[in-house]
Amino acid sequence: MPKPPTMKDVAAAAGVALKTVSRHVNGATNIDPALAARIAAAITELGYRHNLAAASIRPGRSAKVIGLVISDLANPYWSLLARSVERTLSANGYLLMTVSSEEDADRHRLLIDRLLAQRVDGLIVSPPRRDTTAWAAAAAPLLPVVAIDRPALSAPPPPAPVQDARATREDQPLSLAEPPAPSRTDDDLHTDADVDAMRRQHPPLVDTILADNAGGAQAATRELLRHGARRILFLGDSLELYTMRERHAGFLRALASAAPEGADFSVATAHTAAEAADVVTALLGTGRIDAVFAANNRASVGAVDAFTRVGARLPLIGFDDFEAATLVRPGVSVVAQDVALMGEAAAQAVLARLAGDTPPPATTTLPTRLILRGSELP
Amino acid sequence: MPKPPTMKDVAAAAGVALKTVSRHVNGATNIDPALAARIAAAITELGYRHNLAAASIRPGRSAKVIGLVISDLANPYWSLLARSVERTLSANGYLLMTVSSEEDADRHRLLIDRLLAQRVDGLIVSPPRRDTTAWAAAAAPLLPVVAIDRPALSAPPPPAPVQDARATREDQPLSLAEPPAPSRTDDDLHTDADVDAMRRQHPPLVDTILADNAGGAQAATRELLRHGARRILFLGDSLELYTMRERHAGFLRALASAAPEGADFSVATAHTAAEAADVVTALLGTGRIDAVFAANNRASVGAVDAFTRVGARLPLIGFDDFEAATLVRPGVSVVAQDVALMGEAAAQAVLARLAGDTPPPATTTLPTRLILRGSELP
Repeated sequence: MPKPPTMKDVAAAAGVALKTVSRHVNGATNIDPALAARIAAAITELGYRHNLAAASIRPGRSAKVIGLVISDLANPYWSLLARSVERTLSANGYLLMTVSSEEDADRHRLLIDRLLAQRVDGLIVSPPRRDTTAWAAAAAPLLPVVAIDRPALSAPPPPAPVQDARATREDQPLSLAEPPAPSRTDDDLHTDADVDAMRRQHPPLVDTILADNAGGAQAATRELLRHGARRILFLGDSLELYTMRERHAGFLRALASAAPEGADFSVATAHTAAEAADVVTALLGTGRIDAVFAANNRASVGAVDAFTRVGARLPLIGFDDFEAATLVRPGVSVVAQDVALMGEAAAQAVLARLAGDTPPPATTTLPTRLILRGSELP
Repeated sequence: MPKPPTMKDVAAAAGVALKTVSRHVNGATNIDPALAARIAAAITELGYRHNLAAASIRPGRSAKVIGLVISDLANPYWSLLARSVERTLSANGYLLMTVSSEEDADRHRLLIDRLLAQRVDGLIVSPPRRDTTAWAAAAAPLLPVVAIDRPALSAPPPPAPVQDARATREDQPLSLAEPPAPSRTDDDLHTDADVDAMRRQHPPLVDTILADNAGGAQAATRELLRHGARRILFLGDSLELYTMRERHAGFLRALASAAPEGADFSVATAHTAAEAADVVTALLGTGRIDAVFAANNRASVGAVDAFTRVGARLPLIGFDDFEAATLVRPGVSVVAQDVALMGEAAAQAVLARLAGDTPPPATTTLPTRLILRGSELP
């Protein structure tokens, strides 16, 4: 077998400096296109292969791959986020390995292990539903880790003191209507609330990029109240999810500060758009609700689907913009996250650490934007 | 530094067979959950790391990573396809590295090189817009390669004989209306048509999973004609794309076989939903078109957006199902691809070759399904 061609052979064939070939094969995108074309032609002609897998096991060398653990690539929120991360990394010569945890903690841990075993250079992780420090404790000492969409817990949750939990409840002047499809007990809620409170008092374990979930939900709820809503349905995924708890907290905060006497609310859980549509269909016309705050894009799609099916609608604001929002009449008002910016910020945070930056881990909270399109009106 | 823990240490700590630990760390999902939990706990406790990157450079060992090159992860068609590939691979212990070529041939080649350099075990590739054999010639001898959504060209395109091209044109009894937004010359079309014809006569270079693009487009167009459409707009992405050419061919075939005397059509190109909306908005009310065949999900969304904006609609059928299709009234009729099946078939084709199967490369064409929801009616 003939000796495989080297980077030097490529440089000679392309008539460029060895350094330029090296930058090209390492994925730099800021190379003169004419030179890049010559290098690419020489690589193809000679059959040159740059062995990054071998390079990655030499100390100090990098495979130039970042791992991304998200919830589910089939959800447009996550695919747009993944695309944004990919775009920023790719412009800096990194490949992205994306995996979906499906919100399963065991699968999440297995995927982190697999990515670490692949010797990725860094990890961007959306922490699992039931947060534990195990994955972060394992990964963070080895390589840069960034938490995205949800924080990584900085300490194990303390036992929930029931008394404290009740004190928290007293801050809410509103009665808790029976949720139409309850998925958990009150005790769980209080435990999570305590964990969230504790989380806010501790520095983050790793760099963290979040959206202002509570603020966005509060603005949306206040807008529904302003237009006369008195029995708002909070429709979202499980409150085991950090983002859902934050949005729920913002929802309650708006009710506590802006709801008139006699106002009430309900909470319903739906993981898929179809489940959300079923909940709204069942409640429409019962008089039990007079507006919907859809706490994620699946819930919004389900609510619109129910309105379309039944031929009746209620005032609606959703969290997360989605494609169909501008296609239906009235257009669906939303709390929009800047998904592109979140992906870019996460990628930049990993790249900064890879470049040698070593500040203490920080949390970046990105603002949300209330976009009114008409669906908030009665 | 203490010696890092071995797989044997994990087996001892978990009280299971070494073989079970090996299967677990290699990603097998069919392990007794109780055993898997004990192994996972032991791995976390001992800080064991299974070094797949190192394993991958030993002959006969596998990194258990498949590369997937798609067009754009931000398009729901591609993200659903990627998710389906990921699901099948993951159930078989493989990770997926997904990259977006953005239909750029140079970027496509660079990404293939990067994935090969990573020593992926196999590649699933949506060939670039301007197909060349270079990437397949480089990759296919080294590892299993599967073409998805579009075929890999089996030979370089011959020069387009102008006479033959004219002969092809005569098969079409209809006048070619001026396209509202032409993006290419007639000569390009003929060259592509010749290439497609040649492609069909040659065996595929690699295993190939396609949808029945022409058949689906033909069925949709025939349905529009059946309801009285006489001036149908073909609205899609560049005809440089194989799928678009196939859908265009099916569109023309339906017109040739089913259109009455005096029927006409137009072709407009739009890459994004916004571009598609602009084209339809400009044409609505001019009388130049009386129905729309939207050749992909971006075009469908754009058409619906234009209808909503203008407050008028035309009969519409789109290629590819999309989330908003059931949320608007009338619901958007579509030619649905089985995206989940396509992803699964591609993953299974790679896995079969990795398992040692060596039949000649074959093309699998998946059927499409016409789903009528009302938008096809005048």
